[in-house]
Amino acid sequence: MKRIAILTSGGDSPGMNSAIRSVVRYALSHGVSVTGVSHGYQGLVDKNFTELDRRDVSNIINLGGTFLKTARSEEFLKRAGREKAYKNMTESGIEGFIVIGGNGSYKGALVFNREYDFPAVGIPATIDNDIAGTQETLGFDTALNTAMDAIDKIRDTAYSMDRIFLVEVMGRESGAIAVHSALAGGAEDVIIPEIKQDMDSILEKVKQGRKSGKKSWIIVVAEGSGKTGIMVEELRKYIDDVRVTVIGHIQRGGSPSAFDRILGARMGSAAVDALLRGKRHHAVGWRNDAPVVYPLKDAVEYKRENFSQFIKLIQILT
Amino acid sequence: MKRIAILTSGGDSPGMNSAIRSVVRYALSHGVSVTGVSHGYQGLVDKNFTELDRRDVSNIINLGGTFLKTARSEEFLKRAGREKAYKNMTESGIEGFIVIGGNGSYKGALVFNREYDFPAVGIPATIDNDIAGTQETLGFDTALNTAMDAIDKIRDTAYSMDRIFLVEVMGRESGAIAVHSALAGGAEDVIIPEIKQDMDSILEKVKQGRKSGKKSWIIVVAEGSGKTGIMVEELRKYIDDVRVTVIGHIQRGGSPSAFDRILGARMGSAAVDALLRGKRHHAVGWRNDAPVVYPLKDAVEYKRENFSQFIKLIQILT
Amino acid sequence: MKRIAILTSGGDSPGMNSAIRSVVRYALSHGVSVTGVSHGYQGLVDKNFTELDRRDVSNIINLGGTFLKTARSEEFLKRAGREKAYKNMTESGIEGFIVIGGNGSYKGALVFNREYDFPAVGIPATIDNDIAGTQETLGFDTALNTAMDAIDKIRDTAYSMDRIFLVEVMGRESGAIAVHSALAGGAEDVIIPEIKQDMDSILEKVKQGRKSGKKSWIIVVAEGSGKTGIMVEELRKYIDDVRVTVIGHIQRGGSPSAFDRILGARMGSAAVDALLRGKRHHAVGWRNDAPVVYPLKDAVEYKRENFSQFIKLIQILT
Amino acid sequence: MKRIAILTSGGDSPGMNSAIRSVVRYALSHGVSVTGVSHGYQGLVDKNFTELDRRDVSNIINLGGTFLKTARSEEFLKRAGREKAYKNMTESGIEGFIVIGGNGSYKGALVFNREYDFPAVGIPATIDNDIAGTQETLGFDTALNTAMDAIDKIRDTAYSMDRIFLVEVMGRESGAIAVHSALAGGAEDVIIPEIKQDMDSILEKVKQGRKSGKKSWIIVVAEGSGKTGIMVEELRKYIDDVRVTVIGHIQRGGSPSAFDRILGARMGSAAVDALLRGKRHHAVGWRNDAPVVYPLKDAVEYKRENFSQFIKLIQILT
Repeated sequence: MKRIAILTSGGDSPGMNSAIRSVVRYALSHGVSVTGVSHGYQGLVDKNFTELDRRDVSNIINLGGTFLKTARSEEFLKRAGREKAYKNMTESGIEGFIVIGGNGSYKGALVFNREYDFPAVGIPATIDNDIAGTQETLGFDTALNTAMDAIDKIRDTAYSMDRIFLVEVMGRESGAIAVHSALAGGAEDVIIPEIKQDMDSILEKVKQGRKSGKKSWIIVVAEGSGKTGIMVEELRKYIDDVRVTVIGHIQRGGSPSAFDRILGARMGSAAVDALLRGKRHHAVGWRNDAPVVYPLKDAVEYKRENFSQFIKLIQILT
Repeated sequence: MKRIAILTSGGDSPGMNSAIRSVVRYALSHGVSVTGVSHGYQGLVDKNFTELDRRDVSNIINLGGTFLKTARSEEFLKRAGREKAYKNMTESGIEGFIVIGGNGSYKGALVFNREYDFPAVGIPATIDNDIAGTQETLGFDTALNTAMDAIDKIRDTAYSMDRIFLVEVMGRESGAIAVHSALAGGAEDVIIPEIKQDMDSILEKVKQGRKSGKKSWIIVVAEGSGKTGIMVEELRKYIDDVRVTVIGHIQRGGSPSAFDRILGARMGSAAVDALLRGKRHHAVGWRNDAPVVYPLKDAVEYKRENFSQFIKLIQILT
Repeated sequence: MKRIAILTSGGDSPGMNSAIRSVVRYALSHGVSVTGVSHGYQGLVDKNFTELDRRDVSNIINLGGTFLKTARSEEFLKRAGREKAYKNMTESGIEGFIVIGGNGSYKGALVFNREYDFPAVGIPATIDNDIAGTQETLGFDTALNTAMDAIDKIRDTAYSMDRIFLVEVMGRESGAIAVHSALAGGAEDVIIPEIKQDMDSILEKVKQGRKSGKKSWIIVVAEGSGKTGIMVEELRKYIDDVRVTVIGHIQRGGSPSAFDRILGARMGSAAVDALLRGKRHHAVGWRNDAPVVYPLKDAVEYKRENFSQFIKLIQILT
Repeated sequence: MKRIAILTSGGDSPGMNSAIRSVVRYALSHGVSVTGVSHGYQGLVDKNFTELDRRDVSNIINLGGTFLKTARSEEFLKRAGREKAYKNMTESGIEGFIVIGGNGSYKGALVFNREYDFPAVGIPATIDNDIAGTQETLGFDTALNTAMDAIDKIRDTAYSMDRIFLVEVMGRESGAIAVHSALAGGAEDVIIPEIKQDMDSILEKVKQGRKSGKKSWIIVVAEGSGKTGIMVEELRKYIDDVRVTVIGHIQRGGSPSAFDRILGARMGSAAVDALLRGKRHHAVGWRNDAPVVYPLKDAVEYKRENFSQFIKLIQILT
């Protein structure tokens, strides 16, 4: 293999730049040239290609987002778009690609690989940490720390004013950020999409707590649970001063944590190794403190974690 | 004067603890005892008093919020409540009080002072920086940095995904956080409550920018402008991917910046000095890098700053 | 078991407070009372005991250091001191203790357990991440991020002034902080105590780099390597402007990262579980993303990791 | 004036990039072209020039250091070097320059202006805040917050282990960082170069404090005082466990604070205005919350502030 392409796809997440840097420099050190693709799969369709050398990835390891940019591509979802992408890559001498992204990006890679038998390796990047087969995804640790910092700040007001706060964190299918930030932030309770929780018992605990003198209360809600609105409504029936904060998009950005940078560096080099060792439809994952390589088809499903023990611990510790 | 009281009132803001620490230790070093009042004016009504010595204010300078807690008091707004407060203070040997808070807290102090001729000195604390007569208020610098950090994080995604973001920051009557965080965060535009701005020209600039290749765009909106909803609606008429982030309550919390801690320390000692020098209805302010003391009646109005030059500069620099 | 003691021993590290909070609240929720011991083993000798209830550990999860304080105890190293400790504990109805600390603290617990057959469980806490049998120790992730932030800041000057910096990070026996912060910070090279490295080849790379136009250079040095002095001397033979920064004690402090808080919460509850299940001379560890319990005797040795792959990756990626 | 040059000189400091961005975009919006000069005055000598347009200064406002790089130039100190610089500028159509730097950089500008009657305007940038005629310099606020964060972290260990720490902060001629970070960090004492302080009384206070139960102690020392070594020696005569931390070069780097970015933006535009209004040997300063313009000759001396009130306040508040 003489040339590979690298792209970032789907939502951006902190650590992508570290992974790009690693792919580029590791490949170059193995005599493989690297083509950078802008704007994800759309860049494959549009032949938005640039040669990347070592200096092009200098001073990016500490930056959030992705300097290759990312996008969601309608065209690549269609056969005609993928045809163009294939043509563009073969014309440019590209013999395989590495895509950094989430479930949707993995599915695109898998379809493309099946149609053209074209080598593709995925690196998991999503703040939701919801990709099957890997314990960690790029960006999760940073997003978690951002959410926790927000909870820390909100606690200052919750404590000072004896207030109840609902803090909505990201996670459409996954309660990963919610349970981890609730535990780390010392929140009183957490509501996630994966399991059916008894809203009444959560409300009852707030009531009992306030009676016994515990005035401030923080409940972390994963956006995907869809429970923020109803909880506010219910709480306001007997407590005036309930506030809602939606942490929002700040969870996607920011300088990556040490863990995410290291994850990017190590999974990036592992992805290049995988391509060079002949893997053609695989994903890199992180298990037991080291990179692993496994079939893309095992990674495209959302990971459904059982967070019930976690929730129990949060409730015990508050 | 042998004993003074200290309380925090209204919304909490970073730096309050530094001011409390300064009042307590500075007063003690001048032979004056200090009574800590919990929950603001309500604590005066309820006689929620504690003796404070030097150790009680150890290790709080770096903490957000207020360890004395704060509240909004309905009772103190009424004559009967203030009567109780007066009685409680005189019974306890309190000869004057220092209140750390915003406009509402100042008004309470002024009314109380007029009714009972009781010495009261205010320290300005609000993240909105909207108190007349002082260039800075406690908490503004910290809140500004929090808002700016959020804009920095959002720019990662705005850039990576060529997106337009509306970022709503705090400020009911004041665009102070908005214009400063927009300038510091390199935002493309800003909308504030103080001045009537031409929404069409803001929209036109976004359109023109995107035509000329400038894809990502951040517009900071002060919540008090009430313009977030309509701007999103208008922008979405011709751009699909417009996102809104409401920074929210995280702006009130967090470890105070160096500036806010120093402001608290210096204004706290100046407030004690003012009481000891016989000031009876005054506020401490910050002008030209030093504390000043001036009549409370000159401080109770909202400060209306002319930010038009500021806005012009933001627009020129993007 | 009706009562247990909790203490922190050796150097402080971020996350200790989260572990204390978890031990206290988890034990209480299982009907077990908790005695807090101040100043580590010396507190056992001096009977420096306090009853801890749920409220005593409120609002500490986000604080660095240890609110129980820690110390190194000469007395506990001697038989007479341990005799007193045993007497104090049995008099107070304490039936087992949990010690949060590093290798030295573990050795103390093991000796004590052997002498008195007294149940003792350890929770690994040291920024050096050098305890055998656990992948992670409390404080390592926070210290790593602090070291990385420092490298990020230093790179601003290294880049702006085309300078070479030696950055000394903590780690007496262990290069863990050094290799991880070097990789995460994008440093050009790293020197650690575990393996014999060729100083000449490191120097040669700097020379070659500068010839080929790479002017700025950051070399991370673990303090335990003892190589900072000689490297500066060698580098200054042909480059004027070599700077040294010793990150120092800031690596021990600061608000713990999300990971360290979660680690503290989960290992704290696991330690209580271990005691209640009858473990008498064991340590809690962290493996494959979950707590494990294993004999203290397997944990008291320094962990010697083979970081040569890590170093190779750092060198390839710069 | 149709073209101006912009350069950064001397040590880098946070906020320089914001000032460069402001100079470039503000000048362009006034129809003035901008030449970027690399490596400070040496770049004038070497004709290290680049045309800067709006996009060249995108996404730099949040970065520490200076993307134009800086250097100390031996050649520019000599007549022959300045001759070259003059020739290079006139050949390139440059009619004036803006230099961002400290006292040394200002002196270079003044000499050059006198020799060639060439318009030069200075923007004060140094973390030491020691330039006469301006209340603030670019980088001081960021450096102060970095030093304070370090003190916060060190306090965790000082408190947890009842230790005494000497914390050395930057400041060769100036105690500005020292007094401000000591006050903001709640340090117990501070030693600065500007005034003769009684070391014995500082030592005596530590002794007395420890007797009365105050075990941990942080003394901030400005490097320029030269007192770190002797203080450690003296303290160790009767206290075993005295630690020293030299904060070092991290104080020069890091993402600039909101204040420094705003300062850069506003002084940058003011510097362009000054050149366009015909100022030929002037500096921009910051007084009373707004930019001012004054003769360079009034700025080249070190500012000697009287920090004795500040020190007294620090001592009262601890």
